[in-house]
Formats: sequence, structure tokens, C-alpha cells
Amino acid sequence: MRALTNMPKASTGSISSEALANYLGLGDASVRRDLAYFGKFGTPGVGYRAEELKESILSAMRGERLYRGVLIGVGNLGAALLAYKGLKLADFDITAAFDRDQNKIGTTVGPVKILDVKELPGFIQRERIEVAILAVPAQTAQAVADIAVAAGVKGILNFAPVNLTVPEDVLVSQIDLGIELETLLYFLKQRTNSVVS
Amino acid sequence: MRALTNMPKASTGSISSEALANYLGLGDASVRRDLAYFGKFGTPGVGYRAEELKESILSAMRGERLYRGVLIGVGNLGAALLAYKGLKLADFDITAAFDRDQNKIGTTVGPVKILDVKELPGFIQRERIEVAILAVPAQTAQAVADIAVAAGVKGILNFAPVNLTVPEDVLVSQIDLGIELETLLYFLKQRTNSVVS
Repeated sequence: MRALTNMPKASTGSISSEALANYLGLGDASVRRDLAYFGKFGTPGVGYRAEELKESILSAMRGERLYRGVLIGVGNLGAALLAYKGLKLADFDITAAFDRDQNKIGTTVGPVKILDVKELPGFIQRERIEVAILAVPAQTAQAVADIAVAAGVKGILNFAPVNLTVPEDVLVSQIDLGIELETLLYFLKQRTNSVVS
Repeated sequence: MRALTNMPKASTGSISSEALANYLGLGDASVRRDLAYFGKFGTPGVGYRAEELKESILSAMRGERLYRGVLIGVGNLGAALLAYKGLKLADFDITAAFDRDQNKIGTTVGPVKILDVKELPGFIQRERIEVAILAVPAQTAQAVADIAVAAGVKGILNFAPVNLTVPEDVLVSQIDLGIELETLLYFLKQRTNSVVS
């Protein structure tokens, strides 16, 4: 999915198994074999239709049912996430957002209402919320995660730059934007060195 | 780096090669051998000191010199990124931010001044900027990237949910938060299925 999203596509919207394999650091036979598990894709000599393949992978990844989530922390990052179209998925719904700022509580961002963070545990239980997106400051992230997990959340997308400790049956996906930047700088450096030498 | 950042550490701050290998889906001998390239780390029976190992990997990744960057687009996401401590790296400096909103131009976010986006090409050339962090809406991202690249930028960290087309000598790192969410949902689904069955 990431390769299909990030790789430059031919003007026809197609992509060869060789190009995919190169990008992924795999062999092209292995790419063709793995993709064959999802169905019949690709035309010999032409490649895969990138958009079609993406849709097929997504539908294989998706469940039948909708996951319900909340966003916690409506500062700059939280507000940006509520507006971010990349988080609007077919199988995921941000049911409400939470903050402790009295000036924000009761307002809405797009279709999402901002509620008092004190109502978080009751809301998670009542609405059977499974996913929490954490956009709170680092120093409050663990306390907020503890509350969300105690109330029943099973997955956390954590934007706070801090490692969360959670029970084994809870999944945490840590978004570390610093590492993305480090990686870009690393490859820039490699490239600069090889041009110079 | 990502594993060391995200994995739960023992209370002593140490981590075993077996735990690292499990997390990465590699063999533990291979983890020990790969890390030995960077220097002498770890104590048999105890493991690696996580913070020490992170510092060593970072210094191996880093160059001697500072990379200079600009942030383009000071909406919610851009403002969040300027405040995000994860982007404050020892070898990277956000020199200025750019926007087209006259109400923002001339103000500062922390130590970073917001300039008129019209000044972007001149600034990149004059200040020898190598990295652009793109936090503009999807529909303007390509046009802004074209301007930055023409002025001399060699690396782009792109938060706009759109694939950029750039010359071969320019690196793009695409931050796709939707894929992170999809991945979390996928693993939640797998886990739910295995509990049910």
C-alpha cells in the first residue's frame, strides 16, 4: 500500500512488478506471487493498474464492520487531524473529539463535536469506542491512554512523542515524525556523499 | 531506531537482542551482528541499554553538518509541526516558515518567523535550503513542490495526501497518516478474529 501510494506511476497509471520489487527491496517473482494471493491482477508486459490494486489490497485489509474512534486533544495537531482527509476511511468513524479547554468544548470541527474530556470514560463505554487517536501533549499522554484503555479502547494511534505502556491486549501505533525526518536526512547525506566521492 | 523508540523497555532501560529480533521479525544473531557494525554494545544476559544504543545509531546516521529546512504552510498542521518537539533534531534547523495568509506573515511561531510564500524561491537560494516540509493543502502541494525544487531543495517531507512528481535527484518522504490508521485497524481485526475463533 505504501509503495503503491508513494511510487511514481507511469502516465497510464500502471506499475510493473519489477518497479514494485525494486522499491520494496524484494524479488519481482516474489511480488507477483504475493499479490496473486489477493486475486488475479496485472497484465504481462504492462504491469499492475495501481489504483485497482490499491482498492483490492484495501478491501482485503478491511473488515465487514465499522471501527469507531475518538480523537483526544484538539490543539493544533488534533484540529489538523480532524481536517485531514487521509484519516477519512470507509471503515473508520471519528465519533467525537475531547479536550479540557472550556472554550473548545461544545464547538464542532467539521461534523465532529468537541466534548469535555471528563466525559471520555463514559462515552467510550456507552458508544463502544475501540480506537483512540491521541493528540495530547507528551506529559499527559500516558494518563489519557490509561483512562481510554480502562474504559475499553483496544487500539491507540499515538501522536504524542512518548512511549505508552499499555496492557498486552491493546495495540499502540506510534507515529514518530522525527524518525521520518531523520530517515530523509540520512538518505540525503548518502546521496550527497556519493555525488562528492 | 523505530523499534528502540516504540518497544516497551525493562524497568532498567535495557532491551534484549531476542526482544529486538522478535519485534523486527529477524533472528537475534542477525540483530547482534548488525549492531556490532556500529560498535561494541550490549552485555550478555542483560541486553542493550536502549538510550545508549539510540544515541549511537543516531550519530552513525548523522552527518557532520546541519541541514537547513523550511516549513511551507502554517495552517493547523504546519503550526502543530512547528511546535512538535520530535522535529527538533540536532542536525536539522527550520530556518523559516512560509504562508500566503497576510494575517500570519510577519508573526512568529516559537523562534520561527512566518514569511510571505512569494519570497520562498529567493529565500531557498540565498539561504541554501535543502529540505522543505510541506504542510499545504493537497491541491496546492505539487505547485509548491515545483517552486521549492526549482529553487534548489533536495529533500521534501510531504504531509499533503498527494503523490508528488519530482526530478530524480530529489528525495520525497511521504507521510501518510491514513496508512498508519489502516494498519492499526488491520491488526485490530486480526486480533478480534483470533479471539473469536
